[in-house]
Amino acid sequence: MLTTNPFDDDTLHEECGIFGVSGSEGAAALVALGLHALQHRGQEAAGITSLDQGHFHTHRAMGHVAGNFDRDEVIRSLPGAVAAGHVRYSTSGDTALRNVQPLYAELQSGGFAIAHNGNISNAMRLRRELVRRGSIFQSTSDTETIIHLVATSNYRTLLDRFIDALKQIEGAYSLIVMTPEGMIACRDPLGIRPLVMGRLGDAVIFASETVALDVVGATFERSIDPGELVIVQGDTIRSVRPFPQVSARPCIFEWVYFSRPDSIEGDRSVYDVRKNIGAQLAVESPVEADLVIPVPDSGVPAAIGYAQESGIPFELGIIRSHYVGRTFIQPGDKVRHLGVKLKHNANRALIKGKRIILIDDSIVRGTTSLKIVQLMREAGAAEVHMRIASPPTRHSCFYGVDTPERAKLLAAKLDLGEMTDFIHADSLAFVSIDGLYKALGEARRADIRPSHCDACFTGDYPTTLTDQDETEAVDQFAMLAERVI
Amino acid sequence: MLTTNPFDDDTLHEECGIFGVSGSEGAAALVALGLHALQHRGQEAAGITSLDQGHFHTHRAMGHVAGNFDRDEVIRSLPGAVAAGHVRYSTSGDTALRNVQPLYAELQSGGFAIAHNGNISNAMRLRRELVRRGSIFQSTSDTETIIHLVATSNYRTLLDRFIDALKQIEGAYSLIVMTPEGMIACRDPLGIRPLVMGRLGDAVIFASETVALDVVGATFERSIDPGELVIVQGDTIRSVRPFPQVSARPCIFEWVYFSRPDSIEGDRSVYDVRKNIGAQLAVESPVEADLVIPVPDSGVPAAIGYAQESGIPFELGIIRSHYVGRTFIQPGDKVRHLGVKLKHNANRALIKGKRIILIDDSIVRGTTSLKIVQLMREAGAAEVHMRIASPPTRHSCFYGVDTPERAKLLAAKLDLGEMTDFIHADSLAFVSIDGLYKALGEARRADIRPSHCDACFTGDYPTTLTDQDETEAVDQFAMLAERVI
Amino acid sequence: MLTTNPFDDDTLHEECGIFGVSGSEGAAALVALGLHALQHRGQEAAGITSLDQGHFHTHRAMGHVAGNFDRDEVIRSLPGAVAAGHVRYSTSGDTALRNVQPLYAELQSGGFAIAHNGNISNAMRLRRELVRRGSIFQSTSDTETIIHLVATSNYRTLLDRFIDALKQIEGAYSLIVMTPEGMIACRDPLGIRPLVMGRLGDAVIFASETVALDVVGATFERSIDPGELVIVQGDTIRSVRPFPQVSARPCIFEWVYFSRPDSIEGDRSVYDVRKNIGAQLAVESPVEADLVIPVPDSGVPAAIGYAQESGIPFELGIIRSHYVGRTFIQPGDKVRHLGVKLKHNANRALIKGKRIILIDDSIVRGTTSLKIVQLMREAGAAEVHMRIASPPTRHSCFYGVDTPERAKLLAAKLDLGEMTDFIHADSLAFVSIDGLYKALGEARRADIRPSHCDACFTGDYPTTLTDQDETEAVDQFAMLAERVI
Amino acid sequence: MLTTNPFDDDTLHEECGIFGVSGSEGAAALVALGLHALQHRGQEAAGITSLDQGHFHTHRAMGHVAGNFDRDEVIRSLPGAVAAGHVRYSTSGDTALRNVQPLYAELQSGGFAIAHNGNISNAMRLRRELVRRGSIFQSTSDTETIIHLVATSNYRTLLDRFIDALKQIEGAYSLIVMTPEGMIACRDPLGIRPLVMGRLGDAVIFASETVALDVVGATFERSIDPGELVIVQGDTIRSVRPFPQVSARPCIFEWVYFSRPDSIEGDRSVYDVRKNIGAQLAVESPVEADLVIPVPDSGVPAAIGYAQESGIPFELGIIRSHYVGRTFIQPGDKVRHLGVKLKHNANRALIKGKRIILIDDSIVRGTTSLKIVQLMREAGAAEVHMRIASPPTRHSCFYGVDTPERAKLLAAKLDLGEMTDFIHADSLAFVSIDGLYKALGEARRADIRPSHCDACFTGDYPTTLTDQDETEAVDQFAMLAERVI
Repeated sequence: MLTTNPFDDDTLHEECGIFGVSGSEGAAALVALGLHALQHRGQEAAGITSLDQGHFHTHRAMGHVAGNFDRDEVIRSLPGAVAAGHVRYSTSGDTALRNVQPLYAELQSGGFAIAHNGNISNAMRLRRELVRRGSIFQSTSDTETIIHLVATSNYRTLLDRFIDALKQIEGAYSLIVMTPEGMIACRDPLGIRPLVMGRLGDAVIFASETVALDVVGATFERSIDPGELVIVQGDTIRSVRPFPQVSARPCIFEWVYFSRPDSIEGDRSVYDVRKNIGAQLAVESPVEADLVIPVPDSGVPAAIGYAQESGIPFELGIIRSHYVGRTFIQPGDKVRHLGVKLKHNANRALIKGKRIILIDDSIVRGTTSLKIVQLMREAGAAEVHMRIASPPTRHSCFYGVDTPERAKLLAAKLDLGEMTDFIHADSLAFVSIDGLYKALGEARRADIRPSHCDACFTGDYPTTLTDQDETEAVDQFAMLAERVI
Repeated sequence: MLTTNPFDDDTLHEECGIFGVSGSEGAAALVALGLHALQHRGQEAAGITSLDQGHFHTHRAMGHVAGNFDRDEVIRSLPGAVAAGHVRYSTSGDTALRNVQPLYAELQSGGFAIAHNGNISNAMRLRRELVRRGSIFQSTSDTETIIHLVATSNYRTLLDRFIDALKQIEGAYSLIVMTPEGMIACRDPLGIRPLVMGRLGDAVIFASETVALDVVGATFERSIDPGELVIVQGDTIRSVRPFPQVSARPCIFEWVYFSRPDSIEGDRSVYDVRKNIGAQLAVESPVEADLVIPVPDSGVPAAIGYAQESGIPFELGIIRSHYVGRTFIQPGDKVRHLGVKLKHNANRALIKGKRIILIDDSIVRGTTSLKIVQLMREAGAAEVHMRIASPPTRHSCFYGVDTPERAKLLAAKLDLGEMTDFIHADSLAFVSIDGLYKALGEARRADIRPSHCDACFTGDYPTTLTDQDETEAVDQFAMLAERVI
Repeated sequence: MLTTNPFDDDTLHEECGIFGVSGSEGAAALVALGLHALQHRGQEAAGITSLDQGHFHTHRAMGHVAGNFDRDEVIRSLPGAVAAGHVRYSTSGDTALRNVQPLYAELQSGGFAIAHNGNISNAMRLRRELVRRGSIFQSTSDTETIIHLVATSNYRTLLDRFIDALKQIEGAYSLIVMTPEGMIACRDPLGIRPLVMGRLGDAVIFASETVALDVVGATFERSIDPGELVIVQGDTIRSVRPFPQVSARPCIFEWVYFSRPDSIEGDRSVYDVRKNIGAQLAVESPVEADLVIPVPDSGVPAAIGYAQESGIPFELGIIRSHYVGRTFIQPGDKVRHLGVKLKHNANRALIKGKRIILIDDSIVRGTTSLKIVQLMREAGAAEVHMRIASPPTRHSCFYGVDTPERAKLLAAKLDLGEMTDFIHADSLAFVSIDGLYKALGEARRADIRPSHCDACFTGDYPTTLTDQDETEAVDQFAMLAERVI
Repeated sequence: MLTTNPFDDDTLHEECGIFGVSGSEGAAALVALGLHALQHRGQEAAGITSLDQGHFHTHRAMGHVAGNFDRDEVIRSLPGAVAAGHVRYSTSGDTALRNVQPLYAELQSGGFAIAHNGNISNAMRLRRELVRRGSIFQSTSDTETIIHLVATSNYRTLLDRFIDALKQIEGAYSLIVMTPEGMIACRDPLGIRPLVMGRLGDAVIFASETVALDVVGATFERSIDPGELVIVQGDTIRSVRPFPQVSARPCIFEWVYFSRPDSIEGDRSVYDVRKNIGAQLAVESPVEADLVIPVPDSGVPAAIGYAQESGIPFELGIIRSHYVGRTFIQPGDKVRHLGVKLKHNANRALIKGKRIILIDDSIVRGTTSLKIVQLMREAGAAEVHMRIASPPTRHSCFYGVDTPERAKLLAAKLDLGEMTDFIHADSLAFVSIDGLYKALGEARRADIRPSHCDACFTGDYPTTLTDQDETEAVDQFAMLAERVI
């Protein structure tokens, strides 16, 4: 058996989305809708925890929100006016339900549930220390580290214990926490991962993206500030800012690929920025051609921008199947040599004899680009020019995005000419790093304290990477891990 | 519990797609890929039958091809060089596996498997007669009628018996039949439903659309002629044309909506024709506006055509979720009043304050159009003009397309002004029936013997409708039907 | 993987049990209870059909009655005051739901459901003739032959058509039939398979054994006579006897093994008869010993009879696990050499040093007896004497009992001395054929027209065996059979 | 829907059985067989953990061993020469997989797996203290307390930490523990729950009962001593006895009901003891009657003893269905009034007009006895005398047996005459407490330091019952518990 869809492993994957509601009876139903709108941020598992008169209720499931959380008996089993949920993309094969969030623990202070988007870059070191002192972990998730830090903190109140825990962790995190007293939403001091706040009547809503507010009919109020904790207890909302203030570094890849185009990030429309990037590409790397063709669906806004700027017509030259999920396991040895086009098919009648410009959001391993160029050539394209709506991806992410190790990133190994040859294109161009910042409304990238985390393009990581420097220890830990089937 | 997606019941549904392979070991794997490419023609069930050394093997499953026919053990259980399959959209709630095709029977001549796209319009009358003479039906499918006609025919050879059966049925049918001797593909005398032939090496392939040939890497050879039977036995291919020749009447709605845009029908690109319709709409019904916005995804080609003809920019003003299948069952009574946007969400930043032209493929009940216009208004659109890439749908289809009864078709009840009011648009226009034929390269619709079946727009049905005239008998029959759970 | 339970294939299997209720709202719930009480007659699948205001409703499931038919939603889906059901032991590996009874067909007269215990010994010949005339079979069950004979009969009324069908079939059958008019129960002219009638309030009940009447709280009224049809229409019950009268030949193995000991057959307690056989064995084949030990559970009544007659104490020397169903698939290659005792374990403390008499109901292949004797020897038995509560089984059954082909029956190959050696016993004795009839209250077996069918012991088959004489044709037919997975 | 089997809740339930193997490649396959032989000790869930080159592998499943652990892929997923397993009867409705044993944790010393038979009577107090210090529990099982005590112990070696933990717990426990170094089996200082050791070639085996040794072909070596730890590391076996020696108090109910009759406990055959109890009953409480009838299956050995002592014939007057598991959910409201006999049916022909003596092992709530007496009367019994093979059960067990609260124990509420009336018997007698000890070979019960724990009969609990005295705290704890669905 063989997984034949050649494109599946060749994108970056956001590891999760989170959504919380406080102050609306039947909150879990809203959370299910919100998570559904965030499904693009994680498709492998989902979970919701609700709080009803001091009791916590949790349901976790592998797979999509639809099919799992749209059943009445599930939603009825999650009563209460406070609820939070999580969608997850898992990086390794051994995903078990015990790793699906929200995670839950009974602490001395009562129940404690947590949903996390991001990645703690010193989780392994903290974990080893906690285990040495007698803590017992139930999952392999870095998020569980936070719970044990809270459980074993010497501070008295839950809030102080939680802040104590946050001060020990490094990396990227947007969190929604539920305790018997209420809900806490917070964002790491650099604001690497997004988190917004909205209102639906009297209820307060937290979400990874504004599109989830739209879907439940809520109004967007503001983004959570980097380093801010928003505490909702009944009707009271208050903010705590326990960290020294630093300049923010939100993830620039949210603009390029992760967020839905109908989301608003930091007061800018994601769709608009992507069109701007396309237009910028047309200015930086023009080419004479007959058609501008997006690699669907993520390349569409940039292609529209490129077409409008260049005056070359925008056309659907590649048709994407609605019925391909993450994989179609291709049966039989024989057919895999046929070059099947399960996910993308060429619009042959349109392509034949034309000079085309392909627009895609990024190049990771390069295998997708290669296949797409081949698809166009087999359909009779006269020339194939590839334009990429982001700079070359040369570095791994350690802040909650599933990137291949550096050695597998095409742009980390090859120069532009070699990449052009590798994908068999007539020409290839990436938007410049300054061009990307221009599309965001800035003059260019600031060399000192740039306004975003762009480490995947520049290698300029805004935090220390403790675990990364201790890889051997990580491997040793895995040695002892239980495999539960 | 409530199915809340308001758009689901408001499109026309093709009832099936068929795909057959003769002459390639492991044929079932190719059939699985071909059916996957035809999934848009039927999503509720699928089946494959293979033929190996005189033995027939069948697997049927509810649901999509992916998840059911991409497993090695399933494909291995379907050995042989000859295989055919079927994807099905079922019209009623009691779909059981026994109705999933290919249907199979053991006749005196040996096994007989059949896959059918279309609808037999005198099936009920034939069935009553067969039951009276002692035939026992195992399904409620009209297709089974053909099998019993073959089984009880007085002719001697299987081919003569099959032709005898076809001469007794009326309506629309593209069929793939398998017998121990080989495969027969045929199309009704009017060619209402499509069927094409292709080649992959020495193998012969039959498919509802050319896109399925592309996906398996086969080359398109020709369409099966109306009234033609193509018989493949080992290396021999021959044609039989047992019907008097009449002018063809292929379904015009295949161009408007059913077929994938990357398919070729009768030597024309479906994508091209749809763009032509959009351009024709711009000529027939221009309007001053800022943006041309497709209702995704079926409205996209016509919107591109409209934008190119009118010079008004094409933009993605509505974002469609990739994660909505046919339904998301909305949990809880409360949230259904929120006007949720699970499937379509407005790109608010783009829409706000703009005069927009919405392009959709058709209006059935009108409920979708109403919701989409509301969505645009809530997002702040200044004006909303709706343009429809087909004439008003005023009549039911009896040839294999699931249409609501006439009384529920918006255009059968309201005139243009009333429809405009109903959907709350500032203006509404449909392409003219002559404009539709123009987009297909004709000067206008021929009043006598038009080149297509356009009964859904004109009420001009090309065959008699025996069962339709005997509705009471049909209802009585249903009374006795067994319900197997 | 290996099925290691060495005893599983070494018993005879009854192929089914049937149960019907007419005249009690919610009849299906009673049928579920009745089938549960008949579960020992067939464990692989079960089905129930109910009749409600002219509509038939059917549910079929692989596996036991418990777990499938004890769910409210299943019973609610089977409304009406008339219902019948079937439990099945299938003889071949390809059991599919379509073979699970009651079978159902829509005839011109309306719905027709049938449940069958027995075997039609000319089913293959009839089937070939029906297929030649255009009948299409949906199952491989011999029972379906009856339906097609009814469907194609030239008689006018349903009852005449049914009798016409019965007159064409030979073999053993107890049937419960449901039509829109009501229920028909009947038994073949020789009465080979059992069928009794009972009452529960106003309702009429039919069942394979009286134990099923007990379980639903019904009173036993009488056995259905050989060749009798009992027709229940609303409150009316009438009998039809369309066959010439012949002397009955009920299956004698029902007394030996099939029926539950708490059933009454032909006015005699099955438990009593089995004790009588044990006592007869003690008279015919005494032996000096310390303990009488039953092979559980079927050997228990005969062992009690043997112990009481001989004065040797009855003891539980073999403990049977409650948790072994039909199989425990023994994992791994290694452990299967350990001689595991998953189903039966020796009561070592009791056995050690003792001379024991083992009592079992029958010897089929002899493998069970061999294992049981070994088990006793390993536990330290000083002497092991085997006594069998039936004569040697030397012939196959063609009347609905799953027997191995003759060549695999131990008693067909070996004489008594050889069998004693084969099972490693110190002595072996079977009850004599006359002794068996004595236990039933007769002086001895009548040479002419014996009172029972005892063909498995004597080879004296009471009907012709048409299909058996045409085995080649049967094999040829199987060649063309579809395998549906 | 209603669970109608009236007998199900009216027995005492052992809460578990444990089985471990050290030193045999493919150990998990042996553990599966051993657990299958112990299935009567717990039917709701099972789990196996194996140890292979420092890696732990675990599989847990709800339901029986057969059907879950007899699949090759499961056993292959549990590699290694060391493995242990657990079968569980759960006392409460919220049994989740996370409570199924063996429990597993990663401690600083490496993996730690534990399987537990018994009950820790100060678990709640210890848990509260551990949570206060920052421990996070993942299950509601008392067994997890032991793991946290080990994790947070101040001793250095794993063995010292484990002994430190054992010294803090009170109650009943037989444990099998696995660490990367090997296996530890131990029994609480009073030896309340059983644990035996056997050999299979070079492998060491631990099991709750000897029957599990028989089934895997192992030889019985000895019982683990009360308070003994047996440590197996590779080829080395050593014993540690860290507790001050006290006189043992094994559970006397193992003799009466829990253990299989083919097990040996403390050098005595369970079957023999049960026959002795029956004989003792015949001596203590004789009655003139025609038949001795066991309540199957647990009453059979005592009934044989009673019959042999009294000379009254032993007969099967009640037939038990093989196909009733724990429940048959009786469908529909109507039938539950019918007094159905799904599990037990009277052998009417035998019972009618007879004076019978019923033998059962114990009376808990009394509802079963009432039903059984009614069953006999409805079958026509002239007199019904009930004899019970244990003294009246008047007190709850806190050592791992699921007993109803005291208020529901019939003998705690009524005197002998009232009980006789309640169950509608003509007479009722229990064996005396001294008679029970006589059956075990003692002269009578020792008033000081009796040889067994007989608290369920006498109220003489051999340990303190800390949690029992703090019930309110327990209730409060439950308030905060998460309900995961």
